[in-house]
Amino acid sequence: MTDLRVAVVGVGIMGAYHATALAFRTAGARVTVVADPSAERAAAVAATVGARVATDAREAIAADDVDAVVLASPGPAHEEQVLACLARGVPVLCEKPLTTESASAYRLVRAPRSELVQVGFMRRFDTEYRALRELAVSGEIGAPLLLHCVHRNPAQRPAFDSTMMLRDSLVHEADVTRFLLGEEIVAVTVVRPRASSAAPAGVSDPMLVLFETASGRLVDVELFMRTGVAYEVRTELVAERGSAVIGLDQGLLTRRAGGAWGGALSADFLERFGPAYDAELQAWVAGAGGPGVWDGYAAVAVCEAAVESERTGERTLVRLEPR
Amino acid sequence: MTDLRVAVVGVGIMGAYHATALAFRTAGARVTVVADPSAERAAAVAATVGARVATDAREAIAADDVDAVVLASPGPAHEEQVLACLARGVPVLCEKPLTTESASAYRLVRAPRSELVQVGFMRRFDTEYRALRELAVSGEIGAPLLLHCVHRNPAQRPAFDSTMMLRDSLVHEADVTRFLLGEEIVAVTVVRPRASSAAPAGVSDPMLVLFETASGRLVDVELFMRTGVAYEVRTELVAERGSAVIGLDQGLLTRRAGGAWGGALSADFLERFGPAYDAELQAWVAGAGGPGVWDGYAAVAVCEAAVESERTGERTLVRLEPR
Amino acid sequence: MTDLRVAVVGVGIMGAYHATALAFRTAGARVTVVADPSAERAAAVAATVGARVATDAREAIAADDVDAVVLASPGPAHEEQVLACLARGVPVLCEKPLTTESASAYRLVRAPRSELVQVGFMRRFDTEYRALRELAVSGEIGAPLLLHCVHRNPAQRPAFDSTMMLRDSLVHEADVTRFLLGEEIVAVTVVRPRASSAAPAGVSDPMLVLFETASGRLVDVELFMRTGVAYEVRTELVAERGSAVIGLDQGLLTRRAGGAWGGALSADFLERFGPAYDAELQAWVAGAGGPGVWDGYAAVAVCEAAVESERTGERTLVRLEPR
Amino acid sequence: MTDLRVAVVGVGIMGAYHATALAFRTAGARVTVVADPSAERAAAVAATVGARVATDAREAIAADDVDAVVLASPGPAHEEQVLACLARGVPVLCEKPLTTESASAYRLVRAPRSELVQVGFMRRFDTEYRALRELAVSGEIGAPLLLHCVHRNPAQRPAFDSTMMLRDSLVHEADVTRFLLGEEIVAVTVVRPRASSAAPAGVSDPMLVLFETASGRLVDVELFMRTGVAYEVRTELVAERGSAVIGLDQGLLTRRAGGAWGGALSADFLERFGPAYDAELQAWVAGAGGPGVWDGYAAVAVCEAAVESERTGERTLVRLEPR
Repeated sequence: MTDLRVAVVGVGIMGAYHATALAFRTAGARVTVVADPSAERAAAVAATVGARVATDAREAIAADDVDAVVLASPGPAHEEQVLACLARGVPVLCEKPLTTESASAYRLVRAPRSELVQVGFMRRFDTEYRALRELAVSGEIGAPLLLHCVHRNPAQRPAFDSTMMLRDSLVHEADVTRFLLGEEIVAVTVVRPRASSAAPAGVSDPMLVLFETASGRLVDVELFMRTGVAYEVRTELVAERGSAVIGLDQGLLTRRAGGAWGGALSADFLERFGPAYDAELQAWVAGAGGPGVWDGYAAVAVCEAAVESERTGERTLVRLEPR
Repeated sequence: MTDLRVAVVGVGIMGAYHATALAFRTAGARVTVVADPSAERAAAVAATVGARVATDAREAIAADDVDAVVLASPGPAHEEQVLACLARGVPVLCEKPLTTESASAYRLVRAPRSELVQVGFMRRFDTEYRALRELAVSGEIGAPLLLHCVHRNPAQRPAFDSTMMLRDSLVHEADVTRFLLGEEIVAVTVVRPRASSAAPAGVSDPMLVLFETASGRLVDVELFMRTGVAYEVRTELVAERGSAVIGLDQGLLTRRAGGAWGGALSADFLERFGPAYDAELQAWVAGAGGPGVWDGYAAVAVCEAAVESERTGERTLVRLEPR
Repeated sequence: MTDLRVAVVGVGIMGAYHATALAFRTAGARVTVVADPSAERAAAVAATVGARVATDAREAIAADDVDAVVLASPGPAHEEQVLACLARGVPVLCEKPLTTESASAYRLVRAPRSELVQVGFMRRFDTEYRALRELAVSGEIGAPLLLHCVHRNPAQRPAFDSTMMLRDSLVHEADVTRFLLGEEIVAVTVVRPRASSAAPAGVSDPMLVLFETASGRLVDVELFMRTGVAYEVRTELVAERGSAVIGLDQGLLTRRAGGAWGGALSADFLERFGPAYDAELQAWVAGAGGPGVWDGYAAVAVCEAAVESERTGERTLVRLEPR
Repeated sequence: MTDLRVAVVGVGIMGAYHATALAFRTAGARVTVVADPSAERAAAVAATVGARVATDAREAIAADDVDAVVLASPGPAHEEQVLACLARGVPVLCEKPLTTESASAYRLVRAPRSELVQVGFMRRFDTEYRALRELAVSGEIGAPLLLHCVHRNPAQRPAFDSTMMLRDSLVHEADVTRFLLGEEIVAVTVVRPRASSAAPAGVSDPMLVLFETASGRLVDVELFMRTGVAYEVRTELVAERGSAVIGLDQGLLTRRAGGAWGGALSADFLERFGPAYDAELQAWVAGAGGPGVWDGYAAVAVCEAAVESERTGERTLVRLEPR
């Protein structure tokens, strides 16, 4: 197993996050090349992840020591960069949106070897969205009829206008709809209520967007970019015999026949603590420290006192030797 | 950066989990050697993770191609194996309990180079426990006074008796107490109520255990191994000006001055979707598949119709070219 | 204080509920007359509440021993019956809808002494809706922008068609909107997604309804009459600096600046147990039984042992004399 | 049906609450006499509820216009006052504790006609405690094994010492234990951890109290009177095949076989809105105001527009005549 050598193109917030994830939290990959219009930014990220800096995206994509590319550049640059990846035949993980208009996106669909493209719809890898889709597909609560979606940001820069809300934020809900319902969206209606006083002049924030799917299902999406609160993403699926919601900080909650509502407890310790075990291992591999031998000893001494107390029925002192 | 070469000693449920985590979800490490009394089990895990099989633990620990050791063997084997690691000077991640009685555990404390030992108290790497500790240490809700702990398993094998409940399960709560309160436990009282009809004859299941700490704080622990329900681990911290609980499937919930209860929403998309981004990358590196170029195109086409609808105020059809 | 003498006109489910509430759970009132097209039903309810039966609604409204009228008859009968009440000058509590079309309802608005009419929008007396309105009016989370409403029934009779969904169920959401936002609704859009297979042919169940208010606020309402689940009524208020939701079985939950979510704990024992105290008193007055002197004694004996244990630090036996 | 004429003896917070509940929220009763050592306080309450003032408790209990007595006087006065009620043969609702020591409480148990005494353990009338008991008795989650109780107050006066915590607060948990488990408590152990800095010198606040029942069940109670937070009362029942908790602001939550956790949705509108209907009626009877004919009309006009929109598929304006 030799590591996949990855070029990261564009290291703003998202690209830098991907680069460090590849370097420090991902098995089987390392970052070899970093490219960014800002040479300074590229150098900083490259130094952190132990990669070299390419002069531009083109060079990074074409480099000999690159087996795969992560594209986190701005949307307008995607078409050319994806095509360069396809021409070389290297897999590319392209951040959303694929491109900024459907004509160019469709050219990528038609391009040779387009199966090498993966689009950065990361919600498909979120445990809650996966659980919701599994429930939808299972038929346990009947055929899906409606989705209620909420997409809220605490704040946005003034330049983030109505069009960007629809192109950059709504795009996630479009994919969630297609992912959960398994069919295409055929019509869209945007409704603009009175804007929040936090919205810049001329920006319709919040908006309500309705999707209609091929089979007549309906999706409503609240888009609200300046709530002053937090990042809130919520999806409720209403099906013929029940409903389920994610994004309320309580995992997947269902409402089912008979009037029961609730969630599922962890089946076992690996389900509950799997991520903690993985984090423990990763920290240990990285030499980041953790509970030591004294911690192990002290805990054993407590258990030994407990065994004694269970036997005698008495309060028992814990005997600890000097540290 | 060359990968840390790890030997995994003992590949029951826990060791096998660690081995696959090292191989497929951890940056900077690979499994080179696997050892287990069952040659068959060792071979199966070794094949999965691309490692070789050692004839026994001793050989695995001593191997040239081993830089570090994960010990997931039974507790009684730990002392000798840890000492072998220390003698060679390799870091060892030793599953809990460190050893099965305090005398041997203390010998490890006294052993040269014992700082190379990390004990597998994985809850210290759990996001909820970390958040609870951060809250405890911050002083935000005052000095901690009490902990209420619940440790429930849906089922246990008949041989898992009262002593094992105290040695294998309670050990986690002992460490959680020390981790959250930052001091030693000085006395233990075990109270045995009427046993559940699901408990084997002679086994006190459930039990209530009281810990007293050096500064007089009190911890109560419900240990219940045969609930028929699920794996439930819960810790409530009661402090001088508020309380907080984890393990209710709702993250960290606090109760504070003024009577407010609740939790914290995600500050941003990386906090909410960080694990999904990482899972996306890991799946992409592993070639496991994900949303493709058509998914990217379809989503862009929907957003384009949304932009049009926002402009016209009308319901707008989505135009999708043939797939 | 002499009791208000009330006639209950129409004793289907709702009228019978009102009659027993007046007789057994309301201070200052009694039911003197019951009227219903079904003589049998009228007689049964009258016997239960200690009232007499009137031959028809007209007689009930005109009776000498009637100071006020509860109208729980079908909507089409309301106009004439309300007018009869107003002509006599007696207060009338009229179940919703006031009438079945706006022309007749407006005639009641124009009728002399129409201030004697109270309409049965009981949600205005629900503690959760009152708390939500208080929050909306307080300005604590800024000006309201959106409402998301859900109105679900587990089942409905086949004759309950799209029109009845809009006339009988939606009417509550229309009033909730007016109550919470304090302004009129100026436009309505009904969207009909694919119907549930549980819906009779030709019935659009579920539906999504959009309200626009005079100041441009937007309300979406999911109406779903045949969920197979339960009775679910939920309202989320989205304001300029936070949101709040009721109907999730957790009281009023808010999401506020800084990213905190949660609710309010009871300030004191009267807030928490006020309804229990009232139920206790009502049961005692009705001679329905409750904890007796032995219960009082046994609890005191336990506390006495606790005082002793607190003094000695020892486990203390409870001494109970023979019963 | 003539009203029960009630004397309220002792009109501190609790007695005044009972007096107004009897006068304004209870069917079939009225307050005729009020007695209190403070003539001023007695006069104020009497004026509010339309009663007369008695010179002392003895006179109130003996009065001709008194059919029943509510005792909300201090505990030390209870024995004599209850005996006076029993001597006259009038029912008495006696606030907890029945008396302040078990000897006097037992004298009341032995007194003639002691079945006329009801003790003010109002939690037995709380919907959550009733639901929890019903679940315990039903056997649905198996035989009860443990109770975890929490009893917290935000603040207490300095004079409220350890003994009062055990006599006045713990008494509720003693009764809850007996009510939920249906058996006597045979032993008590009080454990005193480090006190909160909010506790007066010498007061053990918080405390942990253990109850053992006749059949060997175990109950732990956290008593904490000075949390600075709110009034929090919580009870978790752990049974052989599941657990259930009340007091988390989410009704009755259960954890059952298979790992499901959750609650029950309202079965119908009367279950959900019953208290709102009752409050509506009580407000109407009291002439307190509510939604009027214009509210009824406006809602009907909205529904009419909705019916039109459902028919045409178009956004429809609401037509409202002038007010």
